[in-house]
Amino acid sequence: MSDTPESSSAQERHRERMQRKKELVDRKIARATIERGVLVVNTGNGKGKSSSGFGMLARSLGHGFRCGVVQFIKGSFSTGEEAFFRRFPDELDYHVMGEGYTWETQDKARDIQAAQAAWQVAANMLADTSLDFVLLDELNIALVKSYIDVAVVCEALRARPPQQHVVITGRGAPDALVELADTVTEMRLVKHAFQAGIKAQKGIEL
Amino acid sequence: MSDTPESSSAQERHRERMQRKKELVDRKIARATIERGVLVVNTGNGKGKSSSGFGMLARSLGHGFRCGVVQFIKGSFSTGEEAFFRRFPDELDYHVMGEGYTWETQDKARDIQAAQAAWQVAANMLADTSLDFVLLDELNIALVKSYIDVAVVCEALRARPPQQHVVITGRGAPDALVELADTVTEMRLVKHAFQAGIKAQKGIEL
Repeated sequence: MSDTPESSSAQERHRERMQRKKELVDRKIARATIERGVLVVNTGNGKGKSSSGFGMLARSLGHGFRCGVVQFIKGSFSTGEEAFFRRFPDELDYHVMGEGYTWETQDKARDIQAAQAAWQVAANMLADTSLDFVLLDELNIALVKSYIDVAVVCEALRARPPQQHVVITGRGAPDALVELADTVTEMRLVKHAFQAGIKAQKGIEL
Repeated sequence: MSDTPESSSAQERHRERMQRKKELVDRKIARATIERGVLVVNTGNGKGKSSSGFGMLARSLGHGFRCGVVQFIKGSFSTGEEAFFRRFPDELDYHVMGEGYTWETQDKARDIQAAQAAWQVAANMLADTSLDFVLLDELNIALVKSYIDVAVVCEALRARPPQQHVVITGRGAPDALVELADTVTEMRLVKHAFQAGIKAQKGIEL
């Protein structure tokens, strides 16, 4: 930051640099011409995988899209987003399915049944041409544990309506899903408040 | 996934393993006792920094929190979230400030003025004891360019109401901000649809 006004030659150099940059950016944008539904995968050990999915859900609702959500892990989490997004029943089909974490239920057979039931709801959404956006929150957890077959999931994703966007979240996204996806982000943990003894906070984790 | 029911001894082993895991998890959760506003920073080159911030905003609104948003980059992006979150004027103070990207404006002096004006709005939010949650979207961009002084920002963050949550997004978060933050995620780009020629999509990027 400079306290004195920049000389007019410095301003001119900035303008020329930015013009060249704009040409580069514009050329890149002009090359991206394909319009279709994308598959987004948020994985990794850091914070932000689900919340990013819910942010894209908000964007989609902002465009008047019809949306579907299946949450594959039911538990003490996700109270805030559920309370909020349940306000839009006409635009959004919202399902909290599955069971809690495996160490809460301690019953593998029940966990598998619950994951399969959640997948049936998700599969119906992926076949529904009226849905513009589908969020499958924490699906990766069920794939990692092989409670749901990744090949079956990939097949349903490939066969979905061409304009439908899908966002899948959770740690440990399987390779086949990463390969199929258009956009993949690894949310890398740099640090987390929990490590410093701070409880999960409403509005942030809850 | 097994097609045959697991033997009762396998079920029992699973239950015992999960019980031990639950004890570990419960002990960790019991150690996290601090309740206060947290500072979250989303940085890195991958997708999901802003959308994660908007997801936490949705969570916060779900809890009935009073919220504030300042978007430091105005441009063709962020149409979906703006359209959506402007529906909640009583609970949310939403400002789209700043100018477009530097290569769009091509005018450094104007960019600095716009960034400073956006910071004034943000600083007022950080001093407002009635706000539970503040999202400063793309603030890091202005910090990297030194359009806003990072020391001034850190001082305002330290002096904010103790229960106020703040989320700051954008590439290249400065070290001082990362150090001050409670939770930091690096959104690492694995791949992006744009690289394969797919345009920015409504509901996903827009």
